[in-house]
Amino acid sequence: MAKDSPPPAIITLTTDFGAGSRYVAAMKGVILSINPCVQIVDLSHVVPHQDIRTGAIVLAETARWFPQETIHIAVVDPGVGSNRRIVYARIGSHHYIAPDNGLLSGLAMIEPPSKIVCINEPEFWLGDVSRTFHGRDIMAPVAARLSLGLSPDKLGKPIDRLIELPWPEVQQVPNRIEGEVIEVDSFGNLITNITRDMLHGVPKSDVVVVTCEEHETQGIFATYSDQPPMTFMAHVGSTGRLELAIVDENASAMLGVRVGAPVRVSW
Amino acid sequence: MAKDSPPPAIITLTTDFGAGSRYVAAMKGVILSINPCVQIVDLSHVVPHQDIRTGAIVLAETARWFPQETIHIAVVDPGVGSNRRIVYARIGSHHYIAPDNGLLSGLAMIEPPSKIVCINEPEFWLGDVSRTFHGRDIMAPVAARLSLGLSPDKLGKPIDRLIELPWPEVQQVPNRIEGEVIEVDSFGNLITNITRDMLHGVPKSDVVVVTCEEHETQGIFATYSDQPPMTFMAHVGSTGRLELAIVDENASAMLGVRVGAPVRVSW
Amino acid sequence: MAKDSPPPAIITLTTDFGAGSRYVAAMKGVILSINPCVQIVDLSHVVPHQDIRTGAIVLAETARWFPQETIHIAVVDPGVGSNRRIVYARIGSHHYIAPDNGLLSGLAMIEPPSKIVCINEPEFWLGDVSRTFHGRDIMAPVAARLSLGLSPDKLGKPIDRLIELPWPEVQQVPNRIEGEVIEVDSFGNLITNITRDMLHGVPKSDVVVVTCEEHETQGIFATYSDQPPMTFMAHVGSTGRLELAIVDENASAMLGVRVGAPVRVSW
Repeated sequence: MAKDSPPPAIITLTTDFGAGSRYVAAMKGVILSINPCVQIVDLSHVVPHQDIRTGAIVLAETARWFPQETIHIAVVDPGVGSNRRIVYARIGSHHYIAPDNGLLSGLAMIEPPSKIVCINEPEFWLGDVSRTFHGRDIMAPVAARLSLGLSPDKLGKPIDRLIELPWPEVQQVPNRIEGEVIEVDSFGNLITNITRDMLHGVPKSDVVVVTCEEHETQGIFATYSDQPPMTFMAHVGSTGRLELAIVDENASAMLGVRVGAPVRVSW
Repeated sequence: MAKDSPPPAIITLTTDFGAGSRYVAAMKGVILSINPCVQIVDLSHVVPHQDIRTGAIVLAETARWFPQETIHIAVVDPGVGSNRRIVYARIGSHHYIAPDNGLLSGLAMIEPPSKIVCINEPEFWLGDVSRTFHGRDIMAPVAARLSLGLSPDKLGKPIDRLIELPWPEVQQVPNRIEGEVIEVDSFGNLITNITRDMLHGVPKSDVVVVTCEEHETQGIFATYSDQPPMTFMAHVGSTGRLELAIVDENASAMLGVRVGAPVRVSW
Repeated sequence: MAKDSPPPAIITLTTDFGAGSRYVAAMKGVILSINPCVQIVDLSHVVPHQDIRTGAIVLAETARWFPQETIHIAVVDPGVGSNRRIVYARIGSHHYIAPDNGLLSGLAMIEPPSKIVCINEPEFWLGDVSRTFHGRDIMAPVAARLSLGLSPDKLGKPIDRLIELPWPEVQQVPNRIEGEVIEVDSFGNLITNITRDMLHGVPKSDVVVVTCEEHETQGIFATYSDQPPMTFMAHVGSTGRLELAIVDENASAMLGVRVGAPVRVSW
């Protein structure tokens, strides 16, 4: 790469198509047919099928690690072919293309979009649009054209706000914080909606008790290796959120805990 | 990327090695050792082990979405090390490299190859060829050299025709079409060998009955959201084929239907 | 790509994060934020969780297929956040970044590192380093900076040797070789620690008996298709190691054989 060439544009893909799906490859083919120089990165394709909430969390936690001006396509789209909208959103320094079904609402909760456009201008889509795969026929070609410099304003009419998912709220009262498990990662760690900021006033000692359903542990640690193997423990994870883990084991599988389980920090 | 540079060549990989297989990475390493500027794209690595028929369908449905001149390597190769041939085929505007075991016959059924070459010229292979991994030792280096401009004619002797799989035929009689399920996608949707063209004369109403094994539904719809959740329904999918689905659910798992199940459209 | 541009640097990723993990994508985002022109390749993300030994084998078998100067990041890191070191190692013509927990010891057994550096210079890390995800916060930015030309000597203090795993030794006595299964591949083939070189003096005939636990086969063949389907057979595989397979089937699943099972060749 010559030092004076601009770097290639980056497009990421997040879907619920499953690892190795040929539908992902079809989207990549469409993108490369329009811009063969773009760098395509898989963000995740193992969002559980039609699970918009998990898709929204995956996007909110991961997209921010990419360079400015990255274009993110997200397809978790149970309403494909219905009258749900497809939108472009500018959030922070990134571009997002997704069905308007809440999939971008985790991101929008962190930072409100500075621009939202309803993608309804077929000029930039594939010529023949199916009713069941808008990721390939609409979102992929639109993203590829953005990567070539198309202005988002050309994609359709501006709109005011995105559809929002109802996000579980964290309750903060004196000596107690109540939240829930919002994600289980591939190690079985239980990631909660309680953030480092919320834990600011919590004492750093054993008087803190963390419970998740009927499971209880004392103290909030810095990392797994502060506790012995097989110990149920709480720490602030790499996502900046309170996480519950069993050291060297799969907490979700061993405890039977899933997304939505209540978590309480008290002292 | 400077505007006046030619775009990087694209090589896709389709295998039955499984998601995350280190054998896929070895092929990528070999390709990049010969042409470090090529863009490699995973088409799919979750073709069921040694299932040539499914591999042929995945290729036929997906390769066409890629740009002209894309080089596709396909490795579903139960006969590796036997006297089965490895072939190069020019089909449409794409290049294919695969064992000659039927893996390209889904593509060849859509459009006959304009050139077929038996890859038997070891000059373009790795120096030390194993008996069990020709994807890495023969196909990857040949593809990389094609991406650098090597003429396919140099790869070996021209041959007349590819090995063909016997494909299930669709029966079309007055008021009835009989086909079968040829693929189950990652959502559990049942994809048939009945194409949109075959459905041309079918009335657009409830008098149409679609059955798959003992399961029956009326009408052929445009998309999932035309029917309520949990409904067994038929529609023409994004592949241009008749598909059977249960809205928001996994039809294959819920109904126990697999590839080969008979499908009938009658009216 | 202009013919006179240098090719893009290559960074590979090997982790135990699981296929499709968003943690892998976060690492890619960090790398591309520092060097948007690098080519990132997934080596494997399906190393079993916290299984350093398997990770070490995957690296040792696969990294060598990549071009000279490739930078390999490996993250199988149960001790993250403890006082285990993170190291840079120059082995052969490649660069490696990994926790110093034995993960590089398969490679180092083949060829001793020509340089080892303890990565302890935070100048080249992310500004805010978590206690539980050094792959993203330390290893990814360090690799990206190496790909831009940073000298490995700047990363920290040189050290003398890497942590080594105890590797099972192969016993070679007259008329008998005793080793074990060290890897099961995605086809269920049983890959042993007995190499082609060790088999040099073994007669090429049926008098050779190969046993694995209570399972026995005669002869060592060149490839699967030398034996009929469903046959338990031994051959020297594409890794240059003695492998045991059931033709067209999954030997590990059918025989219940796992990593560590004893293998004996006698004649």
